[in-house]
Amino acid sequence: MAAKKLSGFPEFLPEGRIVEQRVLESLSRTFELHGFGSIETRALETMDSLTRKGEIDKEVYAVKRIHAPADAPAEFGLHFDLTVPFARYVLENAGRLAFPFRRYQIQKAWRGERPQDGRYREFTQADVDIVGQGELAAHHDVELPLVTLDALERLHVDFGIPPATMEVSNRKLSEGFYRGLGLADPMAVLQLVDKLDKIGPDAVRGLLLEELAMPPAAANACLRLASIRAADTSFVDEVRGIGVEHPLLDTGLEELAQVVQTAQQLVPGRLVAALKIARGLDYYTGTVYETSMRGMEAIGSISSGGRYDSLASDQKNSYPGVGLSIGVSRILVPLIGKGALGASRPVPTVVLVAVDSEDARLAANETATRLRSRGIAAEVSPNADKYGKQIRYADRRGIPYVWFSAGEVKDIRTGEQQPADPDSWVPPAADLRPSVVQS
Amino acid sequence: MAAKKLSGFPEFLPEGRIVEQRVLESLSRTFELHGFGSIETRALETMDSLTRKGEIDKEVYAVKRIHAPADAPAEFGLHFDLTVPFARYVLENAGRLAFPFRRYQIQKAWRGERPQDGRYREFTQADVDIVGQGELAAHHDVELPLVTLDALERLHVDFGIPPATMEVSNRKLSEGFYRGLGLADPMAVLQLVDKLDKIGPDAVRGLLLEELAMPPAAANACLRLASIRAADTSFVDEVRGIGVEHPLLDTGLEELAQVVQTAQQLVPGRLVAALKIARGLDYYTGTVYETSMRGMEAIGSISSGGRYDSLASDQKNSYPGVGLSIGVSRILVPLIGKGALGASRPVPTVVLVAVDSEDARLAANETATRLRSRGIAAEVSPNADKYGKQIRYADRRGIPYVWFSAGEVKDIRTGEQQPADPDSWVPPAADLRPSVVQS
Repeated sequence: MAAKKLSGFPEFLPEGRIVEQRVLESLSRTFELHGFGSIETRALETMDSLTRKGEIDKEVYAVKRIHAPADAPAEFGLHFDLTVPFARYVLENAGRLAFPFRRYQIQKAWRGERPQDGRYREFTQADVDIVGQGELAAHHDVELPLVTLDALERLHVDFGIPPATMEVSNRKLSEGFYRGLGLADPMAVLQLVDKLDKIGPDAVRGLLLEELAMPPAAANACLRLASIRAADTSFVDEVRGIGVEHPLLDTGLEELAQVVQTAQQLVPGRLVAALKIARGLDYYTGTVYETSMRGMEAIGSISSGGRYDSLASDQKNSYPGVGLSIGVSRILVPLIGKGALGASRPVPTVVLVAVDSEDARLAANETATRLRSRGIAAEVSPNADKYGKQIRYADRRGIPYVWFSAGEVKDIRTGEQQPADPDSWVPPAADLRPSVVQS
Repeated sequence: MAAKKLSGFPEFLPEGRIVEQRVLESLSRTFELHGFGSIETRALETMDSLTRKGEIDKEVYAVKRIHAPADAPAEFGLHFDLTVPFARYVLENAGRLAFPFRRYQIQKAWRGERPQDGRYREFTQADVDIVGQGELAAHHDVELPLVTLDALERLHVDFGIPPATMEVSNRKLSEGFYRGLGLADPMAVLQLVDKLDKIGPDAVRGLLLEELAMPPAAANACLRLASIRAADTSFVDEVRGIGVEHPLLDTGLEELAQVVQTAQQLVPGRLVAALKIARGLDYYTGTVYETSMRGMEAIGSISSGGRYDSLASDQKNSYPGVGLSIGVSRILVPLIGKGALGASRPVPTVVLVAVDSEDARLAANETATRLRSRGIAAEVSPNADKYGKQIRYADRRGIPYVWFSAGEVKDIRTGEQQPADPDSWVPPAADLRPSVVQS
């Protein structure tokens, strides 16, 4: 069987996986501390439900049984995000959920696109959303970025992952502004403005003039709007200063000011109004978010999201929602790949119990059992070689302690050896589990 | 968007998901206590690597980009177990792993088969394996079932999941026995004997006579072998008593006796020799395991596995392995589905912080932040309704405590209310996280 690496499908060695485990535990814990419960949905959705949203169907992986007729259409597709499955889950279980429903969801998703920096064909996302039945109060538009920033800050403090800054804007604000300028297709403008970071303001201006045949004054106004950035509500006067008016613009300004004002009090400088934020093709209807990590701006937004007036709807209700998605693979694959993050050791094992002879294996097993019963991970040496060889085995595996049948334990990093009882010995707390280390 | 349930793709409500989370945490913890590290592999393998093992290709879900040419063969398939991906991972990373390599892997797998009791099209497995480079000592054949039994026993003790009994046999034993009888195709016999539990001994005898044209005395000997079951090494004499001889039979008897003898000392009565165990089409070469849960025998084996002489091989080495797979979905879907297992509450939240008015939301946020900083999950009421309504909201969500701005906390289950400080109040330990409850 030939080993085959597939580009765009990142896999970690055991050491990298430990980093990922700790990060996922930390994210889950933060979400739960904020009262969000976990759900998981199946990886497969009907092709029908995956392909109703604009151009995304280009990237779907279609799934069918290998023995289905060759010309039969694919019944299923792998989900390409966690929003479509969540919407389906909410509709399917609406009668059994309490609203507003608070859920987080950490799963893999798949897109059949060409792999490139920060984009994978299989990737892990951590989504956190709140969804109402019929209505959802505006204050959740600031709650969700606060939860996400709290989660990212924990990763920064505990694991040294770079600090994050979130940028926020509002679709009503931009749409109202474009309508106030007399532009007929606000969505088209938004999609061009979305290219600002990639191609720069001059190129975007060119596109606005050529593709949308926009008057130069209007294009300048759009670029001026997109250039506004503020950590406080001063952006409101800046927008007013451009002199465009529209009722939807007023609503958008008010909603965004509320979000920024609260954030300024609770996480000063970390949630910043940036009116260039557009979220291209995604179907948000109000607040939108993007997040950059210091020193890793090139990989794109590591947490994006926004508000939907209607995440889903059935005969009786619509389900408005607001949420964000953290790109776990986008953050971790480069950091682990270039060795910036690793584990203090590549195995969970604290103690290797040495074996004097195969006849003594049962006694060694019992020692290991006694250590494990007190939460100390232990494995028994695979062979009864000389102690020196067993110690080298522990060293090669990254196991810090070796236990000898005479009732002694050796820290093989320092060489220190001391008498110990398997019913009472404890390692230093730092050795109990492998931890995340930066280099 | 219409909600669509798909048969064979189980999904849990938030309460059931809590049970699953606790079970998966428990399994991971046990595996790590025994020195097994986690890995995850991509969900997709090349179609090539998935279809080389016998008949299993019937059940593979093929995957291709939705815009790939209709007549292009599928490039990928979803993995149908965690063994094929693990073998590929070992080969791909052999130079960077320490052998014997000990790994566990908890992931979903997919089979495109018709759903039935205990069989799903998407399901979660928890695999634990040890793999050597070139060689792997025989004592691991008892280590792996002990790890698995320890994991299952924890689920029994902590969550009330029914107790498990593992049955063990050995492929060399049965193959040697059949060869000693002069039978030319031991694999064919094994596959018929594998039907014993489903169709009974008379029907199997019929098949042996008809399909394999076996002499009646040989068929009787095969059935007699399959009927042998013992919690100690007495099975050796029973097999000898049948009077069949073959060197491979001797090896198999010796290997199985070793496993049973050690298990008898460490987990008396829980790992039992049962010579009917065949593992049908799986390509094991030595020890084989199956596991039943008391009262749930009808769903089939909840943990199976065995020894491979060569899990994988490359130009330089072969990689023998032994391991087991726990059918997490097979255990949990029926127990959660029929309500035998649930959670003490369906949300992680301990405290709902009440809101007096929208102006007081910021202060409520700060109270919640102080509780969270000490590990107490808290959410802020979504609205500033009258306290009675906010309490009913907490009740509907299953949140046990409501916090009032006057500095009081109410246990809404008992109605008891007392003064409390968000920097020091702690709930009873049992309320800190939702726990698994039996009904």
